[in-house]
Amino acid sequence: MNESTTLRRLKTIEGHLKGVIRMVEEDAYCIDVIRQIQAVESALNKVSAGILDEHLNSCVITAIQGDDPKERERVLKEISEVFEMANKV
Amino acid sequence: MNESTTLRRLKTIEGHLKGVIRMVEEDAYCIDVIRQIQAVESALNKVSAGILDEHLNSCVITAIQGDDPKERERVLKEISEVFEMANKV
Amino acid sequence: MNESTTLRRLKTIEGHLKGVIRMVEEDAYCIDVIRQIQAVESALNKVSAGILDEHLNSCVITAIQGDDPKERERVLKEISEVFEMANKV
Amino acid sequence: MNESTTLRRLKTIEGHLKGVIRMVEEDAYCIDVIRQIQAVESALNKVSAGILDEHLNSCVITAIQGDDPKERERVLKEISEVFEMANKV
Repeated sequence: MNESTTLRRLKTIEGHLKGVIRMVEEDAYCIDVIRQIQAVESALNKVSAGILDEHLNSCVITAIQGDDPKERERVLKEISEVFEMANKV
Repeated sequence: MNESTTLRRLKTIEGHLKGVIRMVEEDAYCIDVIRQIQAVESALNKVSAGILDEHLNSCVITAIQGDDPKERERVLKEISEVFEMANKV
Repeated sequence: MNESTTLRRLKTIEGHLKGVIRMVEEDAYCIDVIRQIQAVESALNKVSAGILDEHLNSCVITAIQGDDPKERERVLKEISEVFEMANKV
Repeated sequence: MNESTTLRRLKTIEGHLKGVIRMVEEDAYCIDVIRQIQAVESALNKVSAGILDEHLNSCVITAIQGDDPKERERVLKEISEVFEMANKV
């Protein structure tokens, strides 16, 4: 997923979130609000998966093919960390 | 969580999301963007948990104490559904 | 989901998990192991959603229709708690 | 996380799951069962994060430093896939 796709999707999600805020302001049914929040989260998951994919195919390849073992280690550790966090949110 | 708390939190999350969009526009490091998206999701989880709590203590009590078995069933089914979905997002 | 369905599913998941252990013992490909672990988690999510559904239609109805406001509060608080936790695992 | 740590943890989780089955057989309180299932899932998340970490520091480095662009692509695609799935279970 390239930068412009990421941006476009994030702006769509921002619109979606504004819609959720409006729903709360207009006293929408709680369960409908929760469902829309879950839809926003699902969309955010797709964006972060797309960003990770892009990252793997650029920075990660560069770091692993590079000469600096510390940089390599750092880049791989970050992936483990976001993976672990992905399990939690 | 009452409505004004929900609204306040959602607006904070909207600001957070705008910050993420800015990060992407300014070409921030991918992993930092992913981490911020995960933070937004974590905040959204807290909001939906708060809304559910409110819902349980109002509509759900009313429906279960009410006379309409279909309404009762509907309300309980919705909770199962958002719980199942919560496991997925 | 009644008790016997829950039990049957949990035993199937136990078999699945034993299979994952065997995979690790036989040095299976990491990604295949991760995928199987994710499948086990997905199956566990379905079981807990089924148990919650059962719980809502029995204990929760009883508590909410009962005379004890503290019991009612306790039961609803538990649902909020497992919902919040469901967002995290 | 090396293979023996992974195995040891998975066997502990298997014991935990057997405990959950026993709880259901002995008619334990639904919410307690759900909480234990969530604890099992949380432990499984830690194991899969450990396996991914190991994988990144072995196969992934080998593939990315290797000569086969298809193999490289395959290995990176797998990581994106398990990351996307991690968001869902």
